[in-house]
Amino acid sequence: MELLFLGTSSGTPTKDRNVTAIALIESQRKNWYLIDCGEGTQHQILRTSLSLNSLGAIFITHIHGDHCYGLPGLLASAGMQGRTAPLTLVAPKAIRDWLSSTQALIKLYLPFELNFISSEELPILDLGQFTISLAKLSHRAPSYAYSFTERKVEASLNIEKLRVSGIPQGPLWGKLRAGINIIHQGQEYPFAEFLLYEQKPRKIVICGDNDSPELLKDFCIDSNILVHESTYTEDMAEKAAKAGHSYAKQVASFAERASVPILILTHFSPRYQLGTGTTPSIDDVHCEAQSVYSGNLQLASDFKRFQLDKSGNLK
Amino acid sequence: MELLFLGTSSGTPTKDRNVTAIALIESQRKNWYLIDCGEGTQHQILRTSLSLNSLGAIFITHIHGDHCYGLPGLLASAGMQGRTAPLTLVAPKAIRDWLSSTQALIKLYLPFELNFISSEELPILDLGQFTISLAKLSHRAPSYAYSFTERKVEASLNIEKLRVSGIPQGPLWGKLRAGINIIHQGQEYPFAEFLLYEQKPRKIVICGDNDSPELLKDFCIDSNILVHESTYTEDMAEKAAKAGHSYAKQVASFAERASVPILILTHFSPRYQLGTGTTPSIDDVHCEAQSVYSGNLQLASDFKRFQLDKSGNLK
Repeated sequence: MELLFLGTSSGTPTKDRNVTAIALIESQRKNWYLIDCGEGTQHQILRTSLSLNSLGAIFITHIHGDHCYGLPGLLASAGMQGRTAPLTLVAPKAIRDWLSSTQALIKLYLPFELNFISSEELPILDLGQFTISLAKLSHRAPSYAYSFTERKVEASLNIEKLRVSGIPQGPLWGKLRAGINIIHQGQEYPFAEFLLYEQKPRKIVICGDNDSPELLKDFCIDSNILVHESTYTEDMAEKAAKAGHSYAKQVASFAERASVPILILTHFSPRYQLGTGTTPSIDDVHCEAQSVYSGNLQLASDFKRFQLDKSGNLK
Repeated sequence: MELLFLGTSSGTPTKDRNVTAIALIESQRKNWYLIDCGEGTQHQILRTSLSLNSLGAIFITHIHGDHCYGLPGLLASAGMQGRTAPLTLVAPKAIRDWLSSTQALIKLYLPFELNFISSEELPILDLGQFTISLAKLSHRAPSYAYSFTERKVEASLNIEKLRVSGIPQGPLWGKLRAGINIIHQGQEYPFAEFLLYEQKPRKIVICGDNDSPELLKDFCIDSNILVHESTYTEDMAEKAAKAGHSYAKQVASFAERASVPILILTHFSPRYQLGTGTTPSIDDVHCEAQSVYSGNLQLASDFKRFQLDKSGNLK
């Protein structure tokens, strides 16, 4: 499992950072998922090996433009590049209405089906290698966090339990091992009860804009990675609160309390510049978070990749 | 007067070319005008010295996404960068409806007034250093060409004519020299009739997508520069016609017949690659146009500048 950041600036793009977009890539690179799609996301994708044909689904965290203005262009380009496979779009309902309006007024033509699922009503969703669920955040517009939990992890059959349950060796054992529930003599047997997991399923939580990290307390349980905005540093706490954003210390303190092993900060205000000797600097964000967080702290930057190995550690 | 190309690809961006946007910069760099605004135009602007605060107006040639998807983001960024001065937007009506829908659904907030003028009803428009007029083109969607003609060129007063007309020396002469029509003894006197121009006013014609260059015959009279799409080469003539586009030979032949002194081709299909030894290559477009056009032929590329001097020649 891999995270590839395609945009890490808040509000407007800068020369070094595009507005928000994150790619979550499945193990074995079967499919990938896009979380948020700020303007220019398709341009960023051009500079990676990602293909719009293997895009499994898009998730939008909230309706602000720096998280969704890239949608019409990306969808149009997917069509022009020959995509015909349906595409799942999980987003607030207003996004569906906006895309409908764009299709009607600006003649956006899509040669593939768009399966829209509204964030407001998202069920626990099984998609590719992941089970996805949602948490509500606090921002100026309704904003959501999505968690991506591995559906299948390497596991061996619990032979003893199988024998006790009277499930005969053969095709039924094969199905259970493949992660398929079975019915035997009229009774259903969930596969998970007959597997011995070698590793815990990996879980990544990716958040939209949010001024209250503590809302994620339960949602972060068992997560390996929390990706959270850190638009500002503490000296801008008042502005952060007014704009519905978080600052570094606030997010990192939460991650410390919630015992999140890996914290990746992103969505930095353009005021935090790259390069040594600049003020304020992106290093200020890092130092502030580091001062209160003892886990594995990472600051995202455009095109930075984070590979999560099977044990739940960054490679 | 200067043209700065911000995007020269048709349909989708490539690694080397963004989708369409052209900056027309006034003499003395007082203001600039944006013609079309494909996705990522604000990103391209970041790599120039242009400021969204000195943007005089935006002109959209037609509603296709590769010419307008950058609008919401660019307008939002202008606001975030502190723009408060009203901004004129000349575009097909559907663009106004789409922006209204975006403002309502995606909470696009603009701290400045947007003066919308619909292309369908564009009067002869005086704006900054230019008089702008419009011509209808032929494409899958209604598409327009805009001409930008210098309003004020260096000129001296025609003293003899002034005396014959009985206009007394004094403030009225000053107004005429400044390019202002006057009223004297109940009669209106247009300034242009009392000025002796040292140079002809410069004129640039910038076109939207178009499969019929000959529609521009009258519109191009006295133009120094014609900027026209050349999406394809002649071997793709059938596809070009089907998609409502032009090919190099077609445009260049027209420019030759119309005696346009400078022809700038742009809006190239992503199939025409940069670099030597590629097939098909952007050089194919150049060679094909050159074979039928004896004027000053230029191929646009992203960030390429064309300065037009007072005599109407490229610097």
